[in-house]
Amino acid sequence: MSNPDPSPNSRIEPKILKGFRDLLPDQELVRRQLISKLEAVMAIHGFVPIDTPALEYTEVLLGKGGGETDKQVYRFKDGGERDVAMRFDLTVPFARFMAAHRAELYLPFKRFHFAKVWRGENSQRGRYREFMQCDFDLVGADSAGADLEILLVMNRAFAAIGVSQIRFHLNHRGIFNRFLERLGIANQSVEILRRVDKLLKIGPAATHDLLVELMASPTADTVLDFIQARGGHQAVLHQLETLAGGPGPDTERLRQLLTLAKDLGLAERIILDPSITRGLDYYTGLVFETFLTDLPSIGSVCSGGRYNNLAGLYTAEALPGVGGSIGLDRLLAGLAELGKVETAPLTTTLLVFCQDEAYLADYHRLAETVRASGIAAEVYPVAKKLPIQFSYAEKKRIKYGLLCGPAELAASTVNLKDLQTRETVSDLSLAQAIARIKLTVQP
Amino acid sequence: MSNPDPSPNSRIEPKILKGFRDLLPDQELVRRQLISKLEAVMAIHGFVPIDTPALEYTEVLLGKGGGETDKQVYRFKDGGERDVAMRFDLTVPFARFMAAHRAELYLPFKRFHFAKVWRGENSQRGRYREFMQCDFDLVGADSAGADLEILLVMNRAFAAIGVSQIRFHLNHRGIFNRFLERLGIANQSVEILRRVDKLLKIGPAATHDLLVELMASPTADTVLDFIQARGGHQAVLHQLETLAGGPGPDTERLRQLLTLAKDLGLAERIILDPSITRGLDYYTGLVFETFLTDLPSIGSVCSGGRYNNLAGLYTAEALPGVGGSIGLDRLLAGLAELGKVETAPLTTTLLVFCQDEAYLADYHRLAETVRASGIAAEVYPVAKKLPIQFSYAEKKRIKYGLLCGPAELAASTVNLKDLQTRETVSDLSLAQAIARIKLTVQP
Repeated sequence: MSNPDPSPNSRIEPKILKGFRDLLPDQELVRRQLISKLEAVMAIHGFVPIDTPALEYTEVLLGKGGGETDKQVYRFKDGGERDVAMRFDLTVPFARFMAAHRAELYLPFKRFHFAKVWRGENSQRGRYREFMQCDFDLVGADSAGADLEILLVMNRAFAAIGVSQIRFHLNHRGIFNRFLERLGIANQSVEILRRVDKLLKIGPAATHDLLVELMASPTADTVLDFIQARGGHQAVLHQLETLAGGPGPDTERLRQLLTLAKDLGLAERIILDPSITRGLDYYTGLVFETFLTDLPSIGSVCSGGRYNNLAGLYTAEALPGVGGSIGLDRLLAGLAELGKVETAPLTTTLLVFCQDEAYLADYHRLAETVRASGIAAEVYPVAKKLPIQFSYAEKKRIKYGLLCGPAELAASTVNLKDLQTRETVSDLSLAQAIARIKLTVQP
Repeated sequence: MSNPDPSPNSRIEPKILKGFRDLLPDQELVRRQLISKLEAVMAIHGFVPIDTPALEYTEVLLGKGGGETDKQVYRFKDGGERDVAMRFDLTVPFARFMAAHRAELYLPFKRFHFAKVWRGENSQRGRYREFMQCDFDLVGADSAGADLEILLVMNRAFAAIGVSQIRFHLNHRGIFNRFLERLGIANQSVEILRRVDKLLKIGPAATHDLLVELMASPTADTVLDFIQARGGHQAVLHQLETLAGGPGPDTERLRQLLTLAKDLGLAERIILDPSITRGLDYYTGLVFETFLTDLPSIGSVCSGGRYNNLAGLYTAEALPGVGGSIGLDRLLAGLAELGKVETAPLTTTLLVFCQDEAYLADYHRLAETVRASGIAAEVYPVAKKLPIQFSYAEKKRIKYGLLCGPAELAASTVNLKDLQTRETVSDLSLAQAIARIKLTVQP
């Protein structure tokens, strides 16, 4: 570490990288509240947390490489000349984790991992290059019950953060694959998936334009018919089944899942949407995206699906899994736009004013007693003029002040000031003051 | 992202980088419990959280460079040819943060930041290259009250995690600096600080050997006398004061702080230890390290001090601050050695067994009702044989099982099995089952 040099000539601009950002306390408090609510949902559903490194061997993260994400990865040679990369999602490290620790883990394994990932994307679109993902997966069961569990967790997660106006758009990759095979264009499925996935963003006409680059116009029309099928669950399912060549394990699974969801009161939040394919090619079954009904424009706030061979890059053991990922930063932006985040979260509840440093120990004793009752309290650390201390309390939105001169300290009394109303109640015992605070503030 | 290829030829070993590690759920649960307790201490003292990027401009993190830490930094050119580095501590980014956001912040500003940092250290010594630091600082006040606040937070933090056998080793850099000036060797202070700092680790004789590389042997003796001064606070303070050439603002501050600490019942945990200098040269006042009395060998678990010009690299405004940093991973290792961490933290409390997938919706309704009462519950996601489900519950240490066949579901009753004692209570209402669980498990 270098010596901070105070000479102005050597001063450095305190700038941060484009696409990165600091979070000020109010922003970070809001983010933490959200995370904490989501973690509680994970815990009550029996999902357990894991952790993996931010930095891994590039080969482990990218495999043999070549995908579109590869270019966005922060990749470099470390001090030992190893080719390393910062994780760009939490799914690939989880696959590596499952392969590495299989012997130590039980199945089904339900994990969650809320952590930062890094992508050097073009940040002009307002995307961040460092952002937090909240992933949850159930590995070791290929069943409608497992798929349902992920839906239920998502449903509870959004309820926990106060969002009930939400739609889960569901599809099954198997049906679409069968459909493409029937059309004789399954060999182009990755490219088709990528284009079809844009329907919600760019509309049917533009999607058709993209598709005719790959196939004849009538075929593109048929693909568009497929992905635009809408209506009641059973009707759409029947339509897709017909287009795909009849019933199969894929339509059977989807039917089972939709029946369970309906039985549990989730049907109204679920849209069977054949345009949802999730561009990435590791999904093998259920795929889904989640939209805020009042703010569909921000895009999906929770996406995922079923992958039945995720860890196949690392191990011969088949590990079927299903999971979702909440894009926390996008969700937060959405909640803010909907007015659903507290803009001024609580910090300290009580400030003990410092009128004379000779009494600092007394002030701290008072603060300690207040804290012991569960109320956040602090002592102003130096005997500055009272208006300065009041101004501090106001900026930090501290609700109460405790003012004690020598007379009060000698008499073991305090003066409690409501810093919003400016009203002071004098000569209280500390216990009385605490009782008054508790009447108005949830500790 | 690339397609995981299941062919064994292209399989990749799921290895991780040396010095990095995965945390399995039990380890991560323990770490989270610890973090959560520390965060609660921060909150009740009015410290607010911030966040900064993992990646910054190298120049911003290292300044003009040249220090010892520099070699350990993960540094590279990003896709836009910017010289970037992963943060190696949370202090430098905080200094940059203060300079960048000064206008948006009030003073004194009390922040905490618990986050990962990365150092490509020689990992042979068992050190991690990715580890978590828990930093807390008070910026904007140069007072004994501010120094005291940091001591009180540390004291409460260790109490919160069940560690009362703890010693805070305190010193003041100013006294040592005056002492070196008096000896005429202040120009070598950085090198001397670095060597003196090793006293606790290597003992007086080896420290003397290191010092005579820089000064005459009698001078080294005097330095050793200084740093080895021990005894009651007032006696040591008097001795140091004499060696430093008499009273000064440094001894005055330390005296004031020790008096306050004594008055607040902290004196027994504080050792005035002139060998504590903290190698880094940005400290200007109080410096401290924290040792577990029962396990001093693991070294300091919380270190820090006062820096009166931390943000000087970035701004002309003097921002005096004081703060500490808990090395969470080292502390966790210490707590584990002392038997003070739960080795098998709670996961799910209740498993609803899946005997027939036709009843999955019923199982989930039961689980939802259990969760609504605050108890973590899950449904086995597929109708595997019961011994497999029992084995799962055992490995996950799930305490209770709910077994319901068609008869029970029709009669709205459940069979509650204690999975440890294997005892089953039959034909309970769900409410009765929940009441029984609550008797034994804290939700």
